[in-house]
Amino acid sequence: MNNLLNNVLNKCREYTKNGTVASYIPELAKSNPEDFGICVVADGGSFYCAGDFSKSFTIQSIIKPIILLLALLDKGEEKVRALVGVEATGKPFDAFNYSDQALKCENINPMINAGAIALCTLINGDSYEEKFSRLLSLVRKMADNPQLEVNQDVYISEKTTGNKNRALAYMLKAYGMIGDNVDDILDCYFSACSINVNSFDLAKIAFIFANKGKNIITGEQIFDEKYARYINAVLVTSGMYDGSGEFALDVGVPAKSGVGGGIMAIVPNRMGIGIYSPALDNKGNSCAGIKALESLSKELELSIF
Amino acid sequence: MNNLLNNVLNKCREYTKNGTVASYIPELAKSNPEDFGICVVADGGSFYCAGDFSKSFTIQSIIKPIILLLALLDKGEEKVRALVGVEATGKPFDAFNYSDQALKCENINPMINAGAIALCTLINGDSYEEKFSRLLSLVRKMADNPQLEVNQDVYISEKTTGNKNRALAYMLKAYGMIGDNVDDILDCYFSACSINVNSFDLAKIAFIFANKGKNIITGEQIFDEKYARYINAVLVTSGMYDGSGEFALDVGVPAKSGVGGGIMAIVPNRMGIGIYSPALDNKGNSCAGIKALESLSKELELSIF
Amino acid sequence: MNNLLNNVLNKCREYTKNGTVASYIPELAKSNPEDFGICVVADGGSFYCAGDFSKSFTIQSIIKPIILLLALLDKGEEKVRALVGVEATGKPFDAFNYSDQALKCENINPMINAGAIALCTLINGDSYEEKFSRLLSLVRKMADNPQLEVNQDVYISEKTTGNKNRALAYMLKAYGMIGDNVDDILDCYFSACSINVNSFDLAKIAFIFANKGKNIITGEQIFDEKYARYINAVLVTSGMYDGSGEFALDVGVPAKSGVGGGIMAIVPNRMGIGIYSPALDNKGNSCAGIKALESLSKELELSIF
Amino acid sequence: MNNLLNNVLNKCREYTKNGTVASYIPELAKSNPEDFGICVVADGGSFYCAGDFSKSFTIQSIIKPIILLLALLDKGEEKVRALVGVEATGKPFDAFNYSDQALKCENINPMINAGAIALCTLINGDSYEEKFSRLLSLVRKMADNPQLEVNQDVYISEKTTGNKNRALAYMLKAYGMIGDNVDDILDCYFSACSINVNSFDLAKIAFIFANKGKNIITGEQIFDEKYARYINAVLVTSGMYDGSGEFALDVGVPAKSGVGGGIMAIVPNRMGIGIYSPALDNKGNSCAGIKALESLSKELELSIF
Repeated sequence: MNNLLNNVLNKCREYTKNGTVASYIPELAKSNPEDFGICVVADGGSFYCAGDFSKSFTIQSIIKPIILLLALLDKGEEKVRALVGVEATGKPFDAFNYSDQALKCENINPMINAGAIALCTLINGDSYEEKFSRLLSLVRKMADNPQLEVNQDVYISEKTTGNKNRALAYMLKAYGMIGDNVDDILDCYFSACSINVNSFDLAKIAFIFANKGKNIITGEQIFDEKYARYINAVLVTSGMYDGSGEFALDVGVPAKSGVGGGIMAIVPNRMGIGIYSPALDNKGNSCAGIKALESLSKELELSIF
Repeated sequence: MNNLLNNVLNKCREYTKNGTVASYIPELAKSNPEDFGICVVADGGSFYCAGDFSKSFTIQSIIKPIILLLALLDKGEEKVRALVGVEATGKPFDAFNYSDQALKCENINPMINAGAIALCTLINGDSYEEKFSRLLSLVRKMADNPQLEVNQDVYISEKTTGNKNRALAYMLKAYGMIGDNVDDILDCYFSACSINVNSFDLAKIAFIFANKGKNIITGEQIFDEKYARYINAVLVTSGMYDGSGEFALDVGVPAKSGVGGGIMAIVPNRMGIGIYSPALDNKGNSCAGIKALESLSKELELSIF
Repeated sequence: MNNLLNNVLNKCREYTKNGTVASYIPELAKSNPEDFGICVVADGGSFYCAGDFSKSFTIQSIIKPIILLLALLDKGEEKVRALVGVEATGKPFDAFNYSDQALKCENINPMINAGAIALCTLINGDSYEEKFSRLLSLVRKMADNPQLEVNQDVYISEKTTGNKNRALAYMLKAYGMIGDNVDDILDCYFSACSINVNSFDLAKIAFIFANKGKNIITGEQIFDEKYARYINAVLVTSGMYDGSGEFALDVGVPAKSGVGGGIMAIVPNRMGIGIYSPALDNKGNSCAGIKALESLSKELELSIF
Repeated sequence: MNNLLNNVLNKCREYTKNGTVASYIPELAKSNPEDFGICVVADGGSFYCAGDFSKSFTIQSIIKPIILLLALLDKGEEKVRALVGVEATGKPFDAFNYSDQALKCENINPMINAGAIALCTLINGDSYEEKFSRLLSLVRKMADNPQLEVNQDVYISEKTTGNKNRALAYMLKAYGMIGDNVDDILDCYFSACSINVNSFDLAKIAFIFANKGKNIITGEQIFDEKYARYINAVLVTSGMYDGSGEFALDVGVPAKSGVGGGIMAIVPNRMGIGIYSPALDNKGNSCAGIKALESLSKELELSIF
């Protein structure tokens, strides 16, 4: 398996040249576009790694399924679905062009920014510091890594340049979909996007989703099976931005990408995969990361279809 | 299993009252909204039925995955994807609001009308009669039913009232995406949508997709496994119109609905399901049909997620 | 005045290089981009000309205000406004992106293709040949030129390549806004767009609008004053496609352009102006034509604002 | 003339029942929907009034042409047009649905909120207090009323509930169209919208625009004639929101409405008109106000077309 991973990295390394690192958050522009790492957790918890698997990067949008999970755990499916729909929107993650009609639940999705920001308000906690702290605890627990922390430079960079997210949040507020203070909510959201992880962390988180909420090594059921199914389904229809349809064809597993360069891929009942390669295509997905997953999917017949 | 199916029908029958039969094609408006039938083909080919499973209805949009399949078989994946993209559009099946930019492959999808019409041009055949005849042969073969025929009344009704589809076809032509005579292409498309099937036929077709192109009873591999994966993936992301996201959560299997009242659901490696209940929700999906599939999915743990 | 016109042409001739002749109708692509002519009818009917003022070109969209006029004359304001609204749409003349909601009167405008096509159905006549014949008579009468005829080559070229207009017409039909045979309606519309005129003809037509429906030379009141106001108002808000706002600032008179390279400008109570220069900007307006009108407007203080 | 005005009010009073007072700003909801007043300044400065002409209301969007004027005076036409286009957008004043492409100058307009907010940044002044103070001075000068003040209750109400405007401002900032602190800019904008005026004030301001920037009574040329033309042109194409096309037909003069219930109408070279009637139609225009202007326009032949 370690051989396979090394082969995949070697074969796909050229695709790191097809993309560019995210630049709209200045701090992200400092990433090295040639970094490329992968980690797989499989079987009873064995793990396999290759390349820059231990290199840190910010989790960015890969936090979205975990925000969704915590909102589900704290408030239940009914309340979550009443606030944020689950249809693919066919639009970029930061799209503004909502219709002239009042913004409605069914036009947003937990995997686009507007939806993830709205879901932060459903996390339990007396303050947004507490909400964020509970979210960070869940990430640490799923990654089995109590060291995970916010990257302060990225957090400050996001906060400074996050005007599109501010616009989205005020729009949600204007339509009565969120009620709390926008600065507080965004502080929680920006912090959440700025959590530092590496490919190994992502693979372990993915492995929990793959095992329907169970940590196979400790035997602990971290969350109910039904929420794993919920999130896996949402990830297949809209986890890879407006490239989700192509990804379903070419790879065929639930996955989530982030503009930090990470991809978390979930092979139900079999595997958790974490990848890092920060050169992104024009939809915001890691170029080489997708190619590596295509290659692995063919080699190991990972597609759920 | 037959008991289970009867129970499901009884439990979900009340939902037939939540919808209305399609009226934009006058002939469809004559359907009986209380009709409700289901058929399951499973295991090595055993079948189980309940309710109005032998009642005929027109296949309508459920022909779309089969048009896609035949285009793939005739021209290969590369040519198909160069013409029709695979992203969910987040829009109704007959949506007009394409952007001001030139219409592009990536804005259409094989499960919306524009995409299916475009794919008809990729079917082999010297004339559109021949293209349609080859398509009908494939449907008959998959349903193992050489009796399948076009419902002439519905065909004429579609042809008479199909102005939205004419508009879509001329738009495709204006942007150079199709070259042939629009009337010929639409004649093929309207005929294809008007093929009469019943729930049993749909279940058998679904069972071929579920078994990756193989007819398990005869042992014949009707088409390559990779095309089954292709179609299953497309169906999960966009088979149930702009209700695909909710269906993925609540049922969790590849499926396609038609405004004739049918749903074809594919449980990979396990089952083909056909349902008929013509009272539709406002997205064009059978109300009771979706509820029956939710119920079955819970009972038999069908979700692929 | 003849001197002034010659000066204006000389000064603005360089702008003919900023545009390109229309190419989507192949026959139009044969125009000479350097042609540039102007004609002004003023005072009691005196006329002044310069450059290629006698060169023929097809009227194209400049027929739209005359279609609107004839629909008003034949059916009255109430019926016209019930079918086609008057708001600027903020979209190109051949835009497709209507909303998901049913297409409504208020979303179309007599100066975009969809609106002009719809208005053809309101012209009196037992057949579309007769409707067109009555429209041609009105154009001849306003231009005081019984020789005006359809350019058959352009007509055939439009008919062959008019798929976007076919798409728009079928969309209007799908939404119940028009009832007649689409081919017949479009035949009338394509013929109307293909009428050959020159700058002098346009200036005379404009002079009738400028004099509120009266032919000042013969003294005949061709149509009611209120319809002249109606059309002048519509031309200011939407006569120059999605460049109407800029034109109102920079020139300040009701005007209509066509992709054949013509502009008809109306100076209420003072002047009719016809211009020909077929090199178009990206909105479909004659580049040098607009510059010539800006120059004339400053020189002669033509703005109504 | 006073008789005529009284007759117009009596005839149009019933239309106050067709609308509702603005409710999205809570303080505005307290208006009396039956209030109805009008004031006309004409000839050499004579004024004529009827009804509740001295009743105060907030200026709201009628401040937009004055913000535009001050931006033109402070920075010139070139800079203003480089920031904010002049095409009608065909969309409501607070529309969000900009395209997926980067927001561009040509998609906004000085008469919609996004455009007016952007133009505040072009007003000279070291701080937004100073910018606002200069704007208030200009309003006072045009209305010849040094008593004009901000309505503090409305200002606070706007500030509290102005989340849509906050969203628009952050969107402008995200696209680099404005650079200053959003809270400061909006404070200036909310203050400007909350200036208390009455129908007489509006009539006097309109009379300055009608006389091309000149105060006919004092003889002072307050601003250049070219800016009066600029603003009159913009008002005709987009002063009455997405009802501008209909208003051009039915009334035919430059005008601006506000959700406070006011309308300012400009009859070039002849008249300034101010109206107050806070019951609004669904586009945000005063119902009875528009009817009164239609009536006056017919009676006195005010249309510029």
